[in-house]
Amino acid sequence: MNQRLQQLSSWLKERDIACSFITSTPNVFYLTNFYTDPHERLLGLFVFQDEEPILICPNMELGQARNAGWQYEIIGFSDTDNPWELIQHSLSKRNVNVSTLALEKEHLTVERFEQIQKLFPSTTFVSAEEKLHMLRMIKEDQEVAILQEAAKLADYGVEVGVEAIAEGKTELDVLATIEFELKKKGIRQMSFDTMVLTGLKTAAPHGKPGLETIKKGDFVLFDLGVILDGYCSDITRTVAFGEISDQQREVYNTVLKAQLAAVDACKPGTRVGDIDVAARSIISNAGYGEYFTHRIGHGLGIDVHEFPSMNETNDLLLQKGMVFTIEPGIYVPEIGGVRIEDDMIITTDGAKTLTNFPKELITK
Amino acid sequence: MNQRLQQLSSWLKERDIACSFITSTPNVFYLTNFYTDPHERLLGLFVFQDEEPILICPNMELGQARNAGWQYEIIGFSDTDNPWELIQHSLSKRNVNVSTLALEKEHLTVERFEQIQKLFPSTTFVSAEEKLHMLRMIKEDQEVAILQEAAKLADYGVEVGVEAIAEGKTELDVLATIEFELKKKGIRQMSFDTMVLTGLKTAAPHGKPGLETIKKGDFVLFDLGVILDGYCSDITRTVAFGEISDQQREVYNTVLKAQLAAVDACKPGTRVGDIDVAARSIISNAGYGEYFTHRIGHGLGIDVHEFPSMNETNDLLLQKGMVFTIEPGIYVPEIGGVRIEDDMIITTDGAKTLTNFPKELITK
Repeated sequence: MNQRLQQLSSWLKERDIACSFITSTPNVFYLTNFYTDPHERLLGLFVFQDEEPILICPNMELGQARNAGWQYEIIGFSDTDNPWELIQHSLSKRNVNVSTLALEKEHLTVERFEQIQKLFPSTTFVSAEEKLHMLRMIKEDQEVAILQEAAKLADYGVEVGVEAIAEGKTELDVLATIEFELKKKGIRQMSFDTMVLTGLKTAAPHGKPGLETIKKGDFVLFDLGVILDGYCSDITRTVAFGEISDQQREVYNTVLKAQLAAVDACKPGTRVGDIDVAARSIISNAGYGEYFTHRIGHGLGIDVHEFPSMNETNDLLLQKGMVFTIEPGIYVPEIGGVRIEDDMIITTDGAKTLTNFPKELITK
Repeated sequence: MNQRLQQLSSWLKERDIACSFITSTPNVFYLTNFYTDPHERLLGLFVFQDEEPILICPNMELGQARNAGWQYEIIGFSDTDNPWELIQHSLSKRNVNVSTLALEKEHLTVERFEQIQKLFPSTTFVSAEEKLHMLRMIKEDQEVAILQEAAKLADYGVEVGVEAIAEGKTELDVLATIEFELKKKGIRQMSFDTMVLTGLKTAAPHGKPGLETIKKGDFVLFDLGVILDGYCSDITRTVAFGEISDQQREVYNTVLKAQLAAVDACKPGTRVGDIDVAARSIISNAGYGEYFTHRIGHGLGIDVHEFPSMNETNDLLLQKGMVFTIEPGIYVPEIGGVRIEDDMIITTDGAKTLTNFPKELITK
């Protein structure tokens, strides 16, 4: 068994949990190297204390699981099979007394939980996420290497986007150009729907790109990332098209100052909440506190938003190997919005940004 | 209240269910016209028998909910608020005895369900999907109009892809060109990760496009769709690049015959399972039964895969207004795979395809 499966098995032993049933694409990938989105079909992985693990996936994904290196039992099922019956049959051949079962409670649906309760009517269910979050939070060297490459491609995406800005172009024109160039480099998936927003639309943190044309005096906000070998990047940059107003410039510089302060606060031992406070206090002191409507950032890895949530109430201490975003923003409905976001890695004695596209205001 | 909310309220009354808590992006959109992906943040909608509904969403999405036309109560929350406490506070002001609560059991996570159980410790929980599936299954005229347009854009995507095929081009080159042209037309999101597969990779129903170059004698398989105004399309076409073998041609013609037979079987009153059987029997009789590893299709609408699942065991009868895919395939590891997929709408006395790109074998 690989080291990650072994760590999960050790945790099961420590906690006296008979086995764990893992059902999310990211965690199955983390533990098996098999990455698949089964849509509404079941994907699952039983990990035991001592027994060999069992993978459950649709028959049509079986070959891909083997190609990904999975060498243990696989329960395959067709669209007319009942996978729960097949699981019951397979488990009955193993001598495991499932008194306690660890599940991904943040992922598993109630409907599937009810199926599992039928299979294990007298079992106690606990959360497997406590362990999985902690395992995935500390990135191994090969994970950092991939995240670094993914971040470089995010930098490149912004570079292409800034280059593509021109009078008369729409948000979607620019967005299409960015994704075209990234896909030509071998990128199959973006980490999330690429965002290219102009004008007052930048004031919506989750705004939707459309056929609006870019106009002189607009902010243009890019928020994008790629998935590379299963790992995500996530960058935001805001640039000016033509001359902008003094107030726009003040908003920009406030966000930049806040972002640099938060980046500066990152090192092993810093409380996560203090990173948020470092940025938030600068924005509040400048009078824009009410317009910074979200947390400072989020963990980054196989999921684009993963553990931990970087908000001011989080008492977790930063540790070597943690990768997360730092992304303060100010969103004033009448002026527009600015957000500046980097991906960070905590190193032995400090931190560094994985994304490195310039942050000083660029005027196109 | 709009008609859809009224229908849900009526169902609550019929079933003597005090209220419903709806938490998935598609169902919240269906009922409110507010489309948002809240990622890990909570999105929710309380619908009652007689009271006005309540929407719960992150503060930073509040404006977008209002812009989408939501005129009832909204509970907004920040990243440091506990939304469950805010919900409790708001509900305590209403005089509703929640003896029974309908939830989306196929969507709601166990972690959230445990929060809800804390709010409603003596409540019985039932599934809201029984009603929501049925409501969404029958498309209204304005939904059909959007699905029709989305299907035309899928046709266009395949057209662009076939045009882009050339010696030395990679799968991702062709994919990038398709998405570039669709985004320029105003498409923000594809329904799922676009698939362009060549050679033996076509034999994996869920294969992943990469930097493989297209070679003479290859099948090239396109599977793609767009999201237009919240509604999905989904088309698959397989074409030949240069001369293909007799066996490849036999596989193609078998799939085509099966697809046409299944399309032909679609009309009001037909049992869903019989559509699958119509295609499967042709493929089995041609000796390829073991290589048709999935169901004939799936419902299509706000979700690219939605109710009903079109498989041979499904006894549901087709009705006017149902929209779904018909997509038989044969996947032979040594030869490659062929799939042909259309989107269908059931009409008063028959059915028609919404996708209309040619299905006779195209050789590029």
